[in-house]
Amino acid sequence: MAHDSAGNRKFAIVLSVFQVIFIILFGIFGRYHDDALPRSGLSHQTTTLSPQEHRGRRSADGDSEAYTWPKYAIQDYYPMFQDVHVMMFIGFGYLMTFLRKYGYSSLGINFLLAAFVIQWATLMRGFLHMEGMSFKIDLTTLLTSDFTVAAILITFGAVLGKLSPLQYLIMALIEVAVSLGNEYICVHYLKTRDIGGSIFVHIFGAYFGLAVSRMLYRWEYSVTDFNTLKFTTKTTDLFSMIGTIFLWMYWPSFNSAVAEKEFQQRAVINTYFAMASCCVVTFICSHLFHHNKFSMELVQNATLAGGVALGATADMIVQPYGALIIGAGAGILSCVGFHYINPILENKLKVHDTCGVNNLHGMPGILAALISGVVFATATPALYGDSFYDIYGKQMDTNAIQKTPLLDSSGKFVPERTPMQQAGLQMAALGATLGMAIVSGIITGLIIRMKIWDPLPGPALFDDAANFALPDPVPWEQESDIRHRLRTIGRDDEIAAAIPLTKGFPNPRDERV
Amino acid sequence: MAHDSAGNRKFAIVLSVFQVIFIILFGIFGRYHDDALPRSGLSHQTTTLSPQEHRGRRSADGDSEAYTWPKYAIQDYYPMFQDVHVMMFIGFGYLMTFLRKYGYSSLGINFLLAAFVIQWATLMRGFLHMEGMSFKIDLTTLLTSDFTVAAILITFGAVLGKLSPLQYLIMALIEVAVSLGNEYICVHYLKTRDIGGSIFVHIFGAYFGLAVSRMLYRWEYSVTDFNTLKFTTKTTDLFSMIGTIFLWMYWPSFNSAVAEKEFQQRAVINTYFAMASCCVVTFICSHLFHHNKFSMELVQNATLAGGVALGATADMIVQPYGALIIGAGAGILSCVGFHYINPILENKLKVHDTCGVNNLHGMPGILAALISGVVFATATPALYGDSFYDIYGKQMDTNAIQKTPLLDSSGKFVPERTPMQQAGLQMAALGATLGMAIVSGIITGLIIRMKIWDPLPGPALFDDAANFALPDPVPWEQESDIRHRLRTIGRDDEIAAAIPLTKGFPNPRDERV
Amino acid sequence: MAHDSAGNRKFAIVLSVFQVIFIILFGIFGRYHDDALPRSGLSHQTTTLSPQEHRGRRSADGDSEAYTWPKYAIQDYYPMFQDVHVMMFIGFGYLMTFLRKYGYSSLGINFLLAAFVIQWATLMRGFLHMEGMSFKIDLTTLLTSDFTVAAILITFGAVLGKLSPLQYLIMALIEVAVSLGNEYICVHYLKTRDIGGSIFVHIFGAYFGLAVSRMLYRWEYSVTDFNTLKFTTKTTDLFSMIGTIFLWMYWPSFNSAVAEKEFQQRAVINTYFAMASCCVVTFICSHLFHHNKFSMELVQNATLAGGVALGATADMIVQPYGALIIGAGAGILSCVGFHYINPILENKLKVHDTCGVNNLHGMPGILAALISGVVFATATPALYGDSFYDIYGKQMDTNAIQKTPLLDSSGKFVPERTPMQQAGLQMAALGATLGMAIVSGIITGLIIRMKIWDPLPGPALFDDAANFALPDPVPWEQESDIRHRLRTIGRDDEIAAAIPLTKGFPNPRDERV
Repeated sequence: MAHDSAGNRKFAIVLSVFQVIFIILFGIFGRYHDDALPRSGLSHQTTTLSPQEHRGRRSADGDSEAYTWPKYAIQDYYPMFQDVHVMMFIGFGYLMTFLRKYGYSSLGINFLLAAFVIQWATLMRGFLHMEGMSFKIDLTTLLTSDFTVAAILITFGAVLGKLSPLQYLIMALIEVAVSLGNEYICVHYLKTRDIGGSIFVHIFGAYFGLAVSRMLYRWEYSVTDFNTLKFTTKTTDLFSMIGTIFLWMYWPSFNSAVAEKEFQQRAVINTYFAMASCCVVTFICSHLFHHNKFSMELVQNATLAGGVALGATADMIVQPYGALIIGAGAGILSCVGFHYINPILENKLKVHDTCGVNNLHGMPGILAALISGVVFATATPALYGDSFYDIYGKQMDTNAIQKTPLLDSSGKFVPERTPMQQAGLQMAALGATLGMAIVSGIITGLIIRMKIWDPLPGPALFDDAANFALPDPVPWEQESDIRHRLRTIGRDDEIAAAIPLTKGFPNPRDERV
Repeated sequence: MAHDSAGNRKFAIVLSVFQVIFIILFGIFGRYHDDALPRSGLSHQTTTLSPQEHRGRRSADGDSEAYTWPKYAIQDYYPMFQDVHVMMFIGFGYLMTFLRKYGYSSLGINFLLAAFVIQWATLMRGFLHMEGMSFKIDLTTLLTSDFTVAAILITFGAVLGKLSPLQYLIMALIEVAVSLGNEYICVHYLKTRDIGGSIFVHIFGAYFGLAVSRMLYRWEYSVTDFNTLKFTTKTTDLFSMIGTIFLWMYWPSFNSAVAEKEFQQRAVINTYFAMASCCVVTFICSHLFHHNKFSMELVQNATLAGGVALGATADMIVQPYGALIIGAGAGILSCVGFHYINPILENKLKVHDTCGVNNLHGMPGILAALISGVVFATATPALYGDSFYDIYGKQMDTNAIQKTPLLDSSGKFVPERTPMQQAGLQMAALGATLGMAIVSGIITGLIIRMKIWDPLPGPALFDDAANFALPDPVPWEQESDIRHRLRTIGRDDEIAAAIPLTKGFPNPRDERV
Repeated sequence: MAHDSAGNRKFAIVLSVFQVIFIILFGIFGRYHDDALPRSGLSHQTTTLSPQEHRGRRSADGDSEAYTWPKYAIQDYYPMFQDVHVMMFIGFGYLMTFLRKYGYSSLGINFLLAAFVIQWATLMRGFLHMEGMSFKIDLTTLLTSDFTVAAILITFGAVLGKLSPLQYLIMALIEVAVSLGNEYICVHYLKTRDIGGSIFVHIFGAYFGLAVSRMLYRWEYSVTDFNTLKFTTKTTDLFSMIGTIFLWMYWPSFNSAVAEKEFQQRAVINTYFAMASCCVVTFICSHLFHHNKFSMELVQNATLAGGVALGATADMIVQPYGALIIGAGAGILSCVGFHYINPILENKLKVHDTCGVNNLHGMPGILAALISGVVFATATPALYGDSFYDIYGKQMDTNAIQKTPLLDSSGKFVPERTPMQQAGLQMAALGATLGMAIVSGIITGLIIRMKIWDPLPGPALFDDAANFALPDPVPWEQESDIRHRLRTIGRDDEIAAAIPLTKGFPNPRDERV
């Protein structure tokens, strides 16, 4: 049907073309990392060991083995990678099921976009890190592709319920390219440190999404109508909490998965405590803002802001109390955002933010960037020892920072940047990312609102019926008829007669529970 | 009541007998593996170290420590074991809750069967690998028992809603024994390689289940009636998606948990990408087949087929683009199965397949076996280096495969099988497994349809009421009465009076949400 | 409103004060463990390695590196820590959502209490283990704080639905301090071994909660009324099962996370099998006790008792069959508790136990302590080798235990306690914990029933409306109006007209599913 605009063949054709192109590009450029390839130099003895013997020997043997052994990154990355994977698919997916009429689409399109972005982000990041004519794929590739998924799903939250599948797809396609370009520029030129992606993922995803949402705003629709259609039920709120809690629990993995050594330990500890204080503070604010009751919307969202606000400095020595303060501050900021700033955004700036990503990802992300400015400006060699060089780089003039016994007077291994320079670079990354996100979001909004991408007609907003074949519940009369028919033909009428009909078999009351 | 056939004491008695026998057999034959036992030879110094010191030293010490150290398999297997555990209990359990009237039974009997099979599979596999008069239990035992659970739960999906608890139990009892026997024959005599269990688990479970289902087909019942009783609701579909997504996310663990070294890395990377392309392709097919809408049934099931189709070669060098192609192909095959092949199966072959296991496990499993034939036939020593011997075994005539620098001219360490022989053996395993599954499934079906196992009467099909004491929702009038009574006796009438009755307290509307 | 007693500003103010005090105490006393701090002595070469090189070298290098390397505890503890984290937040949280009218509060207050207790337990445990003027925080700190959360959430289960948020908070505040004090006394003075916290966590949490519940019992309310208000629905029961299954699956992590070497392996294996037999036995008892049907209440709760009953001896050589017997025994005990003992508790002892924690945690915990008496009394040096010293301590008179070749005749490394002494100490810990839990629970009950903590009025029991702003479902007429209005102003009337109104758009039937 040409008229069934909410989903015609165009979607399937476009997506098929992308998938085929992805396969071709992977075929031309994608290769396993050496970790995943055989080592020709392995001694024959080695190959005859069982895996347990392998690992036993790995622990014990001396240098002679060291260089003939394939690196074994499973233990180093896999558990945290899977935690991040759960955050993307269960966390974001279920968090967005709160909409009474849009649960299938929230979960299903979240699933689709994530699986699409996994491939596209691997390609894009690969192109930015080519080695000769190919890029290498290992466990960290899977992990960083999942991080890019996070940015796209944050954007998805801002426009949730308001786009057609094709529009979501085009939006994701553009955003992956721009966000990875932005990250590349920040990391390589601005030397930005952002272990938990607060700048590259949270700020970018949120403001890109808000810019798209602004471009899609149709003046004829009132925000009140939109927000009425966003209603939840007890059941959908409980589904949504599955997402919230998995995001909350695994956030320490998100903030520490790519960190090293003691940086990783700190990222875990700091995030754990920031999440705890953020949760407590959210319940406090929720109680104060909602007439002495708790608000599910705040519990579902603002409890997570601590992980965002800590993201850029999760691996630094902020001390446990510092993490608690950052978490608490983020909780307050996020609750204030939902309660006071969101109405301004919606009514004055005409930006409709379905999931409140400005409050959960946007403002806490900016807070994270500002905190990183302070933390990097005040770090000292006395505190960080030799790991100071990991943060501020190497090969800089010896006079720029204070002399400590750790510094090599010959000039080797002296940090590349002063703390103040690093702080300035963090601020530059914040500005660059905000600018890049908003400008590219506006352009993307202009692109995807074109009729060619089949925008949703008004009545189809926030409605699964536009995207999914919905289940057709069988009326109890019909079910009762069928069961009655089956009864007469059972293998043993006596047995059949003994089945109680009073409970379980269809009756109107049962339909409601 | 003798007449309450759907569940009389027989079930409890039979299950009790099995559980007692299991305990006795474990008592006679089951022992901890040495990994889980103290090492007498440990030096006294060693035992005084804290675990962290242990591990610190493990990294650093030389050969002198190597042979006094208990092997420590927790890090090697535990995280992936738990992922697989989640796939069995949450993944399969929730995936099958889509049936509106059979959610308790899907989840509950999934739970029961899995816990039952864990014990029985440990025993059976133990009997096949006796060391003297006992078998040893370590972490890999738990893992492989969980793999056997997968086969039984796939079969459960084929007959879901159509058997009594006792029938499910007898079916699982037989299937564990036969499937482990089949696996033993394939691995030991046919040298089958099937790292992800596509042949031993997916093909066996699916076709055993379909054969059982065929034997249970009662001509009087129309397939249309069955499928009408299978209706879903939005809530049950969202529960079902919990299962889908956990299965999807953790499939890389399933396909790689027992792999070694770089084989494991490849299994993770390949499965990750195959799942991604399979998900994307499922949405494409779903859109094409369902009048330009997505279908929840396909999203819940076909998205997983990529992991099955890759299973037998997940650890091989199929390259990332190869994994994408296999995943995409599996997605198409599975969607075609649900849309075109399932009706044929139901109407022509009289095989009713409740969860569509033929489409998710059966045909993608066969595809996996065929792919393994191609992959093993075309592998070269140049590509695999010394790990070539891990695949094709040792001690074979030197002239059989092409000469490479890796080959030892003395004849030691030369592969046992040629690539073409291995491919032939893979095909033999496919044939053997299909035959064994179908024949044993037919026999099992004949056994469990005997009246002694209390088959369900017609009206009790797809109905929790036959298995579970269902909740009796309290009518709002009754709840209101109770709350009113409690109101008059609160500790402080003034306080009680202030509780708003307008919301939250029972009212008819509230019952519906 | 001063009258809105169920939740006035007092809650927010009290919680804010606690959070601020926590931050101050963390600031004064909390420090990172050395694991999470830079090593000044690191050689410059070392710091320039990538993480993979680090880990590669860790395996291979000799002693020269050993003492310059920060310990890297992530791999040792992190995966199991996250499993335990999931048990606390998803496991307990969803397990308690079975109450039809109290799902928001079960999940939300579970979340709040856990985040609150994480901080408070870290502080309290820190104060008990001060090093100079501060305590150290590492990954094991996070893990042990989560264990304390378990005790508080068990107590929460006993009083679920019957307290105001402020009362829950005060209760948690007191319980953390007392339970950690009890644990400290048992471990340091009574040398109690309780790897899975059956005594310190399960017994303490359960009997503390039951004592509080007894103190809060209001004679005017009938237990029948309470239990009528506890009704479930199919949907809430399926949510509850999410909690059950995650608890069940991850229990091996709970029982083994802090164990070492082969003790940890055994704890995993034993718990895995105890959970399996407990699940099977629960289905048997459930069938026998509920007129040949299964009971969801038993499946949700009694299936978990095996992990509790094994807790105190999970790391010991009880053999796999021993674990199966313990699991089966716990399942029977728990089912008998729900079916026969709970009514006595409620009607005779006036203790209302909302979630049946006596049956799941209390009695199985006592069973665990009794089993530990037997196991520790009968262990022999012949069985445990040198690890015997890990259990019974060092430096004791050589004559006290039988001579074995493992014993050093010089008297060094000879166990501190005899097996019978250890068994006696386990019984002493059981008695001490029971006494401490009940006495402190009674006092806590007397404190929190004071009017100052805003106890709930009768009608607000088991009702989310007292705690949460509930969603206000939009009637379908209103939604239909909005969608109709949006229809007339779509960008393309022709497109809008094509959207089918027959399905998906609001209609009364749709409201019910």
